[in-house]
Amino acid sequence: MASLDDPGVRALLDKPNHAVVSTLGDDGSIHSTVVWVDVQDGRLAVNSAVGRKWPTDLERDPTIAVIVYDEDNPYDYVEVRGRATGTTDRAREHIDRLAKKYLGADEYPFHQPGEQRITYVVEADRVRHQKQR
Amino acid sequence: MASLDDPGVRALLDKPNHAVVSTLGDDGSIHSTVVWVDVQDGRLAVNSAVGRKWPTDLERDPTIAVIVYDEDNPYDYVEVRGRATGTTDRAREHIDRLAKKYLGADEYPFHQPGEQRITYVVEADRVRHQKQR
Repeated sequence: MASLDDPGVRALLDKPNHAVVSTLGDDGSIHSTVVWVDVQDGRLAVNSAVGRKWPTDLERDPTIAVIVYDEDNPYDYVEVRGRATGTTDRAREHIDRLAKKYLGADEYPFHQPGEQRITYVVEADRVRHQKQR
Repeated sequence: MASLDDPGVRALLDKPNHAVVSTLGDDGSIHSTVVWVDVQDGRLAVNSAVGRKWPTDLERDPTIAVIVYDEDNPYDYVEVRGRATGTTDRAREHIDRLAKKYLGADEYPFHQPGEQRITYVVEADRVRHQKQR
């Protein structure tokens, strides 16, 4: 199994490449969305606001898949399958760090009044690094 | 609900943006991979080889999600949730058309000996077009 510490995987995740997060709806459907991602203590970390669709999915069923491809070479990608755990603790600092990575901003510029941020970290069952070309 | 015929969605799908396909493993995990995509008779169409992981998933459970984001603006994306139906009929012509779209090649250059191509078309339960910026 690949690891998030592999240099090729680190390179994918250090770049501001976007991630696709997939979760399970209560009707058994798969829901996918595009998000920001980084690595916290060796695990993928994604961020949302409490009450949105995919965080609600994860509260019911922690099954998650996250895939990140190199936007300069989509044939180079990492897929992580596992279970997500959510916490609101320091989730606002996390979205600010992501805003730095993706926007170059010192602070996340899209906060909504009353919004509670939440970070999900992924306990990986499988890490797959594919690089075809 | 958005439609694949919406001009903004068509623009996303006419460009050689890659797709992330997600399927369900027999252990309930979600599997995601990066693929080529086009539209056939108003439905998303993706292509693989018989026996690979995600086609095998789909033969057991047709649940699928496909998401395509604009590689020049990841905040513009379309997500399609639904069920996939596979056919080997004209699947080789289909991969050649995809090679034209993504590589500018007249023929898919990566055929493996004995490989049987398969096309999955997606019957959409939901089409969601997000364009944040």
